[in-house]
Formats: sequence, C-alpha cells, structure tokens
Amino acid sequence: MTNPLAPVLDHIDTQRDAFLGRLIDYLRHPSISAENIGINEVGTLLVEMLTGIGLDAQLAPSEGHPMVIGRWEKAPGKPTVLLYGHYDVQPADPLDKWVSPPFEPTIRDGRLYARGVGDNKGQHFAQILALESHLKVNGTLPCNVILLLEGEEEIGSPHIAAFARKNRHLLEADLSITADGPRHASGAPTIKFGSRGVISFELRCRHASRDVHSGNFGGVVPNPIWTLVHLLGTMKNAEGEITIDGFNDGIEPPAAEELAAVERLPLDLEAFKQGLGLSRLDAPADRPFYERLCFRPTLTINGFHGGYGGPGSKTVLPNEAFVKCDIRLVEAQDPVDILNKVRAHVGKHAPEVELIAEENGMQPSKTPIASPYTAPLRRAFVAAQGREPLLMPAGFGSLPNYVFTKILGIPAFVTPYANHDEANHAPNENMTLDCFHEGVRTGAAVLHELGALAERD
Amino acid sequence: MTNPLAPVLDHIDTQRDAFLGRLIDYLRHPSISAENIGINEVGTLLVEMLTGIGLDAQLAPSEGHPMVIGRWEKAPGKPTVLLYGHYDVQPADPLDKWVSPPFEPTIRDGRLYARGVGDNKGQHFAQILALESHLKVNGTLPCNVILLLEGEEEIGSPHIAAFARKNRHLLEADLSITADGPRHASGAPTIKFGSRGVISFELRCRHASRDVHSGNFGGVVPNPIWTLVHLLGTMKNAEGEITIDGFNDGIEPPAAEELAAVERLPLDLEAFKQGLGLSRLDAPADRPFYERLCFRPTLTINGFHGGYGGPGSKTVLPNEAFVKCDIRLVEAQDPVDILNKVRAHVGKHAPEVELIAEENGMQPSKTPIASPYTAPLRRAFVAAQGREPLLMPAGFGSLPNYVFTKILGIPAFVTPYANHDEANHAPNENMTLDCFHEGVRTGAAVLHELGALAERD
Repeated sequence: MTNPLAPVLDHIDTQRDAFLGRLIDYLRHPSISAENIGINEVGTLLVEMLTGIGLDAQLAPSEGHPMVIGRWEKAPGKPTVLLYGHYDVQPADPLDKWVSPPFEPTIRDGRLYARGVGDNKGQHFAQILALESHLKVNGTLPCNVILLLEGEEEIGSPHIAAFARKNRHLLEADLSITADGPRHASGAPTIKFGSRGVISFELRCRHASRDVHSGNFGGVVPNPIWTLVHLLGTMKNAEGEITIDGFNDGIEPPAAEELAAVERLPLDLEAFKQGLGLSRLDAPADRPFYERLCFRPTLTINGFHGGYGGPGSKTVLPNEAFVKCDIRLVEAQDPVDILNKVRAHVGKHAPEVELIAEENGMQPSKTPIASPYTAPLRRAFVAAQGREPLLMPAGFGSLPNYVFTKILGIPAFVTPYANHDEANHAPNENMTLDCFHEGVRTGAAVLHELGALAERD
Repeated sequence: MTNPLAPVLDHIDTQRDAFLGRLIDYLRHPSISAENIGINEVGTLLVEMLTGIGLDAQLAPSEGHPMVIGRWEKAPGKPTVLLYGHYDVQPADPLDKWVSPPFEPTIRDGRLYARGVGDNKGQHFAQILALESHLKVNGTLPCNVILLLEGEEEIGSPHIAAFARKNRHLLEADLSITADGPRHASGAPTIKFGSRGVISFELRCRHASRDVHSGNFGGVVPNPIWTLVHLLGTMKNAEGEITIDGFNDGIEPPAAEELAAVERLPLDLEAFKQGLGLSRLDAPADRPFYERLCFRPTLTINGFHGGYGGPGSKTVLPNEAFVKCDIRLVEAQDPVDILNKVRAHVGKHAPEVELIAEENGMQPSKTPIASPYTAPLRRAFVAAQGREPLLMPAGFGSLPNYVFTKILGIPAFVTPYANHDEANHAPNENMTLDCFHEGVRTGAAVLHELGALAERD
C-alpha cells in the first residue's frame, strides 16, 4: 500500500509559491482585537475560506469576539483533533519602527514581514492549507478535525473558557494541537507539552492629595514610591525567591520524565546572554536555565511609575505611584487562588496600597510527555521536516491550553511553526518562508499520523 | 530722641499701594534660570533700580549667571548686614494649571499671583523698598548694607560658593539675612537659624539590550526594576531608617536650646494631615514632628520610572529603569562625603547600577539661637508686625546659607516674608498683600535694630 501522505507533501511542495501568495493576501487584513479593528471581517473571511475547502464552518458567538469553527467529521473510528489558533493580532505600534508597513506583507532575505505572520495567521493558515491539501489530493482527511480559531487571544482569551464550558458539544475531541509561538532557539522543530499560566495586577499607592516639596515636607509626609518599594521587597527577595505567603504551596514538582526532557534540550548560554547583551542571568544564578522557564513561577514588574521623570533633578516628594506586575504560574497553581494570596499579602504588609487585578487570569496547563499522541507527533515531524523534534515540557509563555486540559479534559500539544526570532508582539514581526512551508508539510503529516494511529494500535 | 524708625514705617504705610504697583511691574519680567530666560535683563534692571535709590550697584560675573551686588557702607562703627536673595524664578510649567498667567501679576482675594512673587522677588523687593524708605525719609541707613542677589538659586546655586571664596572682599559683613521661604504654617512671623543641605542623584539600571516578553524570558533575564527595588531596600528600611553605611556618622545632635525651641513651636497635627489628605505621617511614627524636619536627614525618591505605564496590562520584562533621589542633610553632614558613601553603598550592593550625581550639592547650615543678633531681630519683628516671631532652629528646605556660615564665617538668619501657602515651585504662586507690606516694614525695622545694636551694647 502506498503512503497516502507522499502525494500530499508533493502537492504542498508544488504549491509552495501559490500558498505564500495566499498567505500574503490573508495578512493584508488587519484584525486587531485590542482596538476592535477588522475582527468581524476576518472572522467572516475565514468561514468562507473553510467552507470553500470543504469544512462545515460557522462564526460561533461568545461573550466577546466570535469563534471561527470549522469541522470535518467523516472518518468514523479515527481520532478527532481540535486544532486551535487565533485570528486576532497584536496592535502594530510603534509604527515608526517597522521597516515595511505592518499590513503590507513584504519579503526580505527569505522572511515574510507582516503583523500577525507568526502570531498567529501564518501558523493557522498553514494548518488550513494542510487540510486543503489532503482534501484536494485524496478527497478526504485521515482523521476527524475541529478547527477552533479565536479572536481574543491577544487580549488574554477572556471568554474562551466560558465558551468551552457552554459549548462542549462543539468541541468533543481526543486531543488538541496548537500551532503557535516560536520553535526552540536552536532552530530545531519543537513539541511543547504545556504552558505557564499568567495573572496581571497593578499596585497603586497615593498618600498626600498633592505632590509636595521634598525639603519642606521630607521626613513627615509619606512617600508612595517608598511604600511600594518596601512592599515589593516583601514579595520577592534579592535572591529571586518569591516570598508571598503561601505562594509556592500549590506547585506540582516536575516529573522525572520532564526533568530528563529539559536536560536534553540544547543550550548555548553564552550565545543567549550575548544575544541580549546580558552580563548575567537573573537570580538565583545556580538554577538550571530550562528548569526556571518550564517549572518555576515568576513575579515580573512590568512597569513602575511615579514622580518626576524629566531631565535633571526635581526635589519633589510625589503623592502617587503605581506598579504593574505579572505572575507566570506553573502547574498546578490557580490564578484565582494566587491572586487571593497576593491580595492577602498586600493587605497585611501595606494595607494602604490598592490592588487592581485583571479578571482574565490564565491557568497553567501540562500534558504528560508519555501521552500516546507523542509518538505520532514525533513521526509527523520526522516525515515533514526530516528531523526529530525537541520535546519541551512547557512553553515559557502563556496559551489558553488549560481550556483543553482542564475544561475539556483532553491532552494538549503545541507544535510551533514560527522561527524563534519571529518578533511577535514587536515591530517587524516575521516568519521565514521555510518555516511557513515546513508548517504546511508538518500540519499535513500530523493529520496523517493521527489517522494512522488507530491502525497501528 | 525720637525713634527714627517711626517715620520710615509711616512712609511705608503711605506708600503701600504704590509699592504694590512697583512689585507688579517687577514681576512682569520673567527670569527663569533653568531655561536661561530674562536673566541678564532682570539683573540689569536690578542694578538700575539699586543705583536709583542710592546704592553702589554692579553686575558681578560668576562662573554662571551674574550676581547683583548693591552696597551702602557709610555708617562707620555700625554692623554690616549682608542681605541675600535671588532674582531667578522657577519655570512656570504646567501653564494650564495657572488661573491667571504666571507673568501677568493678578490680585485675587487679597493675594498677588505671579511666578516668583514669593520665591523670591516679592521678598527681596521688600528689602529693597525698606532700604529706599530709610534713605528717602532719613537720607541715610541705620547700618551698613551689602545686598547680594544671585541668579541661580532655583538651579541649586552651583556657583555662589566659588564666587564667595573668590570675592571675599566684596562680601565682608557681620551677619547675613535671607528673606526667603514661607513663614510658619500658623501664620506667625518666623526666624529660622539654619537650613538642611541637599544632594540629588540618579540611579540607572539596564540589563538586556531590549525589552523582552515576560513569559518567554521571565526567570532567566534579570529585571532592572527589581534590581533597583532591592537596592533601594538596602538604603532605607520600612521603619524609615536610612541604612546607607556610615550615613549617620557625621550628624551633630541638636543642642538643648534647639530642642527647647522646637518644643515651643505650635503644631496642629490633625490640621496638617487634613490639609494634605493624609491618613498618617511618614515612619517612624513616634518621632516628634519638628525634630524630623529640623534635625533629621531624609532620603526621598523623587521619581521611579521603568517599563510599561499605559492602560491595562502589558506582559513585558523591561530592560531599563531609573530612580531619582534627593537627600536632605543636617548639620554637620557634608554632601561630598555623603555622596561618596552612597556611591560605595551602591557599588557594594548593586555594582551594575550606575550612579549619576549632580555636582552642586548644598551643605547644611546652622547658626546658634544664642547669637547676639537674635535679640535685635526679634525686636524688629515686634516693631514691624506687633508679634514675637517663632524661633525655628532650621528651615526644612535648603538655602545656600552655608556660604555665609562656613565660607564667610558669619551668622546667617532667615526671616521669611511669604505666607506659608505661597505655592512656590508650583502653579498659582502667590503672596498675600499683607505679607508683602509687613515684609517691607520688617525689612526697615531690622535695619533700624541692627543700627541700634552698637548703641545698646
């Protein structure tokens, strides 16, 4: 029996330039969720696109921007894979830092530059082209597919959890696969088995009703910057340990297979430091690099602002200041629980400080590396890219994969197609032409291997 | 023998409206040292004004803006008083907060509003009118006078010390008097015997060469805001104690007469807190109010800026941040010594942090309350304002009086004429019409009492 994947991959290779042209067309449509620009237009465009290749597609309303859902379930006895992506993109600011305009896709030096090319249009469009190629060449798909594209990932996926709880019947699948984020920095193909959660909050402090003179009032009027500095000092010490009461209680230590997996990841620490102009890593200095990124929570100060910031000096004692923070959570910390602990900690150490939290924290998620779907995914990468993928226990950023693992109860995998230097969320976002092409091939191979799984078992 | 002061005070009362009109004319001339606006024009105007009333006046060059010096030394055997003031003013920003334009003096509710009216034009102009009134009524002054008006007080008086060292022959006097700053908050007339010094510096930290994503890099890339937070935490603790190594070594404890003086000062703590909307005072809470302001140094964070400050949240790990600070020094701390200690402390605790210091720190200064000039000054206030002045061991802000006490070796007194709510350095700077008028009277009475001193002794 001939391998039905081979002609599909041949087709994809033949169509390489045509697919690139269609991606460029797609990228010309802005869909900025934070600014509510182009969301409905692109959602509608996708429904037409999916219908056109033979999927049963719809715009499904949520409490926020609608979900695009496309389904093909004509392979009884085969697994059903939920392919997740997002059709919204980050705002394009700062515009003056773009070499070519963000919504005029431009090829330079083997890369396609455009807002959203890596995050996430180039990646889910590769999935769509993989589906199309199978259907075109073989008239069928190797397994059942539910394609779920949300329109609010870049604003923190605030409604996907409620959508999934309410619409379980639309999302019944055996596993989920997300093609998002970058490959490993070494350039090797990568499978990620989890993602850190995240919660953002702001600490605000105001003492006097107005700024005062530091000479006339210094010593008697309290300073909100000092209040925040001392509060922050109780939340994380200089050794890098988070010291919020009870913060570390819920952390599930990494499994032996996960520790073994991170030990196998390539690491060039000097190149990493050089690439970012760093003279040292963050404390604690002796903790292994990947262990920090996969298995440790963080408390990052995103911004601290208060008082005078102009040239020279100004002898002012400011009356208000604020700090913006995010916490990256690891399995099995819960954002609501952690936020309650932060709130209790602030209430105990600096009750004058106001805590303003975003509602839409994101839970961490993790899927065992020993999952039965790991082997077919690895085979798919070898078939499509000729290389074994690296296995990363967790991606370092946050994705709403807890919706799949914790709400739908299915294993969730991340198979990033973008290059590691995709500059997502930044000017000059890009995807290499090779990465995009390999993405389409990999998407096709994944479908094939999932379809072949039942036969192998 | 009739009191020669009485007709001078009568003259001043008669001229009340005319003097106010001339002050308004003077205030129309901007002289903003920080922006080098109008400095030479106003300096020249003052030389003409002083010459016109009978002083020997000149613009004396310094390394910066010129000094205005006016002298009258035709009273052999009488003391020579050096009257210090400054003809430069603060910038007028933010302009939109002014009810009437800063350089269009406007009277509302018994107050004159204009940039520089309290700080310091209305105060040294009152001195000039006091000189004029004596000369006009009696054809002579009761004592010898050197009037010294500098043009750089609002940028930290960076050149007056060098000027004084180089031009001792121009400044030979028995005492100095500065009419600057506000009266006591109770509204009572006030004599101040010293001022805190000040030194400003900035702490800058930069780790990575660019901002990075808090998810993809949080845990391995160091955060400059955290570095600064932890460094600041080693410089002052939550109890309000400055913990820079050796910082408190040079502090001269207050004398018994100084402690007794601050105990006599009126204090309405509740009104103070209410006026500023404060629910508490700065730590340590149990230290007496005036003791903090007169005898304790401070470490004030003037501003802290780094990372994201816009609406909502942004999961960024910023690459640079800075903190601006000032330290108020008390007798006998030295700004150069303290700055060296700060530098050593930063070098020990956070060698990655860059310290940028301003050259022109200001030394603290203090004159004993038991000075022989205290009694005539008190008599002058009683004669001019009908009230005993409060005696404050130190003003809380900083003035370059160390030039008089430490370089010229003469006692230095501060006799503020402005109301306590003059809003100096702020929009809607003002001086009450009564304060200005009482200032002219007090200036005249001070000259008289100093002249009478020799006769009494």
